[in-house]
Amino acid sequence: MTARLDAQIAFLNEADRLKSIVRATTLTDGSRYENSAEHSWHLTLYALVLADQAGPDVDITRVIQMLILHDLVEIDAGDTPIFDEVDAAAVARAEAAAATRIFGLLPEDQGPALRAIWEEFEAAQTPDAQFAKSLDRFQPPMQNLASGGGSWTDYNVSEDRIAARVGAKIAIGAPRLWDYARARIAAFFANIPKG
Amino acid sequence: MTARLDAQIAFLNEADRLKSIVRATTLTDGSRYENSAEHSWHLTLYALVLADQAGPDVDITRVIQMLILHDLVEIDAGDTPIFDEVDAAAVARAEAAAATRIFGLLPEDQGPALRAIWEEFEAAQTPDAQFAKSLDRFQPPMQNLASGGGSWTDYNVSEDRIAARVGAKIAIGAPRLWDYARARIAAFFANIPKG
Repeated sequence: MTARLDAQIAFLNEADRLKSIVRATTLTDGSRYENSAEHSWHLTLYALVLADQAGPDVDITRVIQMLILHDLVEIDAGDTPIFDEVDAAAVARAEAAAATRIFGLLPEDQGPALRAIWEEFEAAQTPDAQFAKSLDRFQPPMQNLASGGGSWTDYNVSEDRIAARVGAKIAIGAPRLWDYARARIAAFFANIPKG
Repeated sequence: MTARLDAQIAFLNEADRLKSIVRATTLTDGSRYENSAEHSWHLTLYALVLADQAGPDVDITRVIQMLILHDLVEIDAGDTPIFDEVDAAAVARAEAAAATRIFGLLPEDQGPALRAIWEEFEAAQTPDAQFAKSLDRFQPPMQNLASGGGSWTDYNVSEDRIAARVGAKIAIGAPRLWDYARARIAAFFANIPKG
């Protein structure tokens, strides 16, 4: 019993490091960049509040489990900002190695089951994973709109680039959220003084 | 439709402020104090991993919903460190007013339902709420053990004070977690050089 709890607490203590992984998006007040742990919490709240945007095949309980777990691999692999140009295969390899180490801290009857939830999220093939991914793409634009630009300003991206980079992925799992975001993004860029 | 989403996003943007509410516990590496948003995420992970510590009447899905929502009122009312001496009735009044304002940002068909989940957590009378409360009391000692003292050092508290302040509350919902924590806390204090 104690050995099992020791393993579970070792995993939970390791997970604490996600609080030190910094993302490209800021808090809505622009005071600092957000970290992946608080971002993960925010996404679980998005899932609770926006559950009625999910399709009929989506189990919001599993979506929330995915969102709790979805960034843990960043403890080893780091966060990959969405407007960075990266070697996707290299990132995937680093994240798989991170999953092996981090979920491997758990008892043997538990680690593979939680890793499987993360892998389902990453693969983005099931309705649950597609809705979870849509929320993960939808929250940063909402942060940027609230903070007056955020990572769009830092990365100097255009409205078209945002649509290409996150629009399709939001629309797969939550088409009405992309309609909503697109309109607000268009209004935001229309109000930026040109040149 | 847009008005409904506007209200939901207003709530989710307001919730962002929980990332700026600082708690008395530090990260496990001691580098800074944790905030209530990342703490809330950490607790949802505790619930996923330690679900087998819950009694047979506990619905872990509802526990996770409670933990996502449990600290939102701190946006207005602030965090109350567990070893502070406070006017509990005044804190409860401030938190109720906060709940009215914050959950009131949501659409009318949604705010009261989410507030009811938070109220159930606060009342700590149902098996779900009691398990959620146990996790909320169990995580800080785990953080303090990992960081070498944390809020126990800041507040200069004794082993007996910890047992009195958090032990009974952990034991109500998760008796084996209190057995585990008590033994580790005793070992920690046994190794502190006596003044």
